[in-house]
Amino acid sequence: MTASAASGVLAAALTPLHEDLSPDHGLFARHCRWLLDNGCDGLSILGTTGEANSFSREERIEILDRLVAAGVPAGRLLPGTGCCAIPDTVALSRHATNHGVAGVLVLPPFYYKGVGDDGLFAAYSEVIERVGDGRLRLYLYHFPQMTAVPIAHRLIERLLKRYPGIVAGMKDSSGDLVGMVATVRAFPGFRVLAGSDDCLLGLLREGGAGCITAVCNVAGFLAAKVLKAHAAGDAAAAQAAQAKLEAVRAAISAHPLSAALKEIMAGHSGIESWRTIRPPLVRLTTAEAAALASALDRLAFSPPPLD
Amino acid sequence: MTASAASGVLAAALTPLHEDLSPDHGLFARHCRWLLDNGCDGLSILGTTGEANSFSREERIEILDRLVAAGVPAGRLLPGTGCCAIPDTVALSRHATNHGVAGVLVLPPFYYKGVGDDGLFAAYSEVIERVGDGRLRLYLYHFPQMTAVPIAHRLIERLLKRYPGIVAGMKDSSGDLVGMVATVRAFPGFRVLAGSDDCLLGLLREGGAGCITAVCNVAGFLAAKVLKAHAAGDAAAAQAAQAKLEAVRAAISAHPLSAALKEIMAGHSGIESWRTIRPPLVRLTTAEAAALASALDRLAFSPPPLD
Repeated sequence: MTASAASGVLAAALTPLHEDLSPDHGLFARHCRWLLDNGCDGLSILGTTGEANSFSREERIEILDRLVAAGVPAGRLLPGTGCCAIPDTVALSRHATNHGVAGVLVLPPFYYKGVGDDGLFAAYSEVIERVGDGRLRLYLYHFPQMTAVPIAHRLIERLLKRYPGIVAGMKDSSGDLVGMVATVRAFPGFRVLAGSDDCLLGLLREGGAGCITAVCNVAGFLAAKVLKAHAAGDAAAAQAAQAKLEAVRAAISAHPLSAALKEIMAGHSGIESWRTIRPPLVRLTTAEAAALASALDRLAFSPPPLD
Repeated sequence: MTASAASGVLAAALTPLHEDLSPDHGLFARHCRWLLDNGCDGLSILGTTGEANSFSREERIEILDRLVAAGVPAGRLLPGTGCCAIPDTVALSRHATNHGVAGVLVLPPFYYKGVGDDGLFAAYSEVIERVGDGRLRLYLYHFPQMTAVPIAHRLIERLLKRYPGIVAGMKDSSGDLVGMVATVRAFPGFRVLAGSDDCLLGLLREGGAGCITAVCNVAGFLAAKVLKAHAAGDAAAAQAAQAKLEAVRAAISAHPLSAALKEIMAGHSGIESWRTIRPPLVRLTTAEAAALASALDRLAFSPPPLD
């Protein structure tokens, strides 16, 4: 990932918490540095996996401020800034842009359902106009299973025409590789990042920009192998790494992702508070945790060593 | 509605905006007073119809502050305070409780889908514990079509057992009268309010507490007739008023509700800015507005005179 573009392997970084549910800024900075040292080109902090919408605007601002203050380069960050309320999205996007982030990942306003392209165009336009900063790089966030507010090609087309250079790409968490490839083909230069590990190699082959996934919190090194082998033209090695990545993902995604990944990090680090998660998400039960550990053992998978 | 209970006819009050999308506090206070003078026992401000989730926490606090400062009695208000992030829900619920509102209407955290009762119980518990005020009266907000996070009987049961007196009732916007009646029967003393006008009389007959609806922004007087006739034991008059209310609702709900009701208020008041709505919602097109006006004309319906 260059300082000006979100591409390659990005982890949708977990947000570690103290037992009282407040963010553990120190552990977060360590986690982010470890990810960047172990295969991740960038970090999409405060996304779905990072429980972004479970934090207030003030908390989200402090999380980014303290991460940058701890030395994690802002240019490698793609923070989620999309809220239901435009003033919140504007404030977070402006704040992140002022930090010099690679871009911001912006959910559509997700409370109202059945809204049309006109309303979504108006919402994104308000955000871009109100941020009013040529440095803004906005990545759309297509996640219909969670938002029930899909991002259609017609909307992308209108936004690219109106805001060229600002609207930079999209994270596609639909799991629909055919749709992702269609987006890559329809909009040259528009960066499409897969939200699901399963689609990584298939999307790279068609000119996609990379991935932003939850599983890269523990397996970014595997996704990096996929990219490296693909770039080197070694199709067999790329496919082998992709298969390993998909197997790890299958084991983890048998459980709710954030909780499962926090469980893995707790086991890996010995830090019990890693398991803490904000309601409405809940930590894995003991039985679920045991099943997850067994499944990963069968794959002989473990995350990279901690510092 | 008494000062200590949300019951009877409540409008899910619209939030009028200036052309720049900022709240029009003066017009809002006039609208709220007019509603209370024309059939509404109370006002559920800052709910779905009131575009609550399109406002920042700071805006929501100011909207309530200025409404109460304008003389609208807090004891007749049931503001929506449920956000995705617990700190926001806590801040808004505490603020409203300090104003002496009748109660707060609390959506479940609505970003994450597929969360279970344990997570929702934990979320509501965190809110109640952190507000930490015996004056809190919390109304659950069941609106599965919008949130995709339903409120199940098992959850209500657990919350009532743990927080008796605090957890006071539920707005049920599912449109499922059978389910609402089941809730009334399962939890004596728990106030169930219909989120849809269609269910009002049916719910009253089974011991429901009333309704909270969008259409009551213009037709609260019709809902009040239903309640009055039902209380007087005049089944025929109650049914006639209910039929009229349902016909008006059918005409309005052929369009997105907030936009349609803002259109009606703009036409009724001559105040053009009434049509302003925050993205992702959009105002009615000219053709839609004409169709709505025709439909209401055919019903010989108009809202009560303005002051």
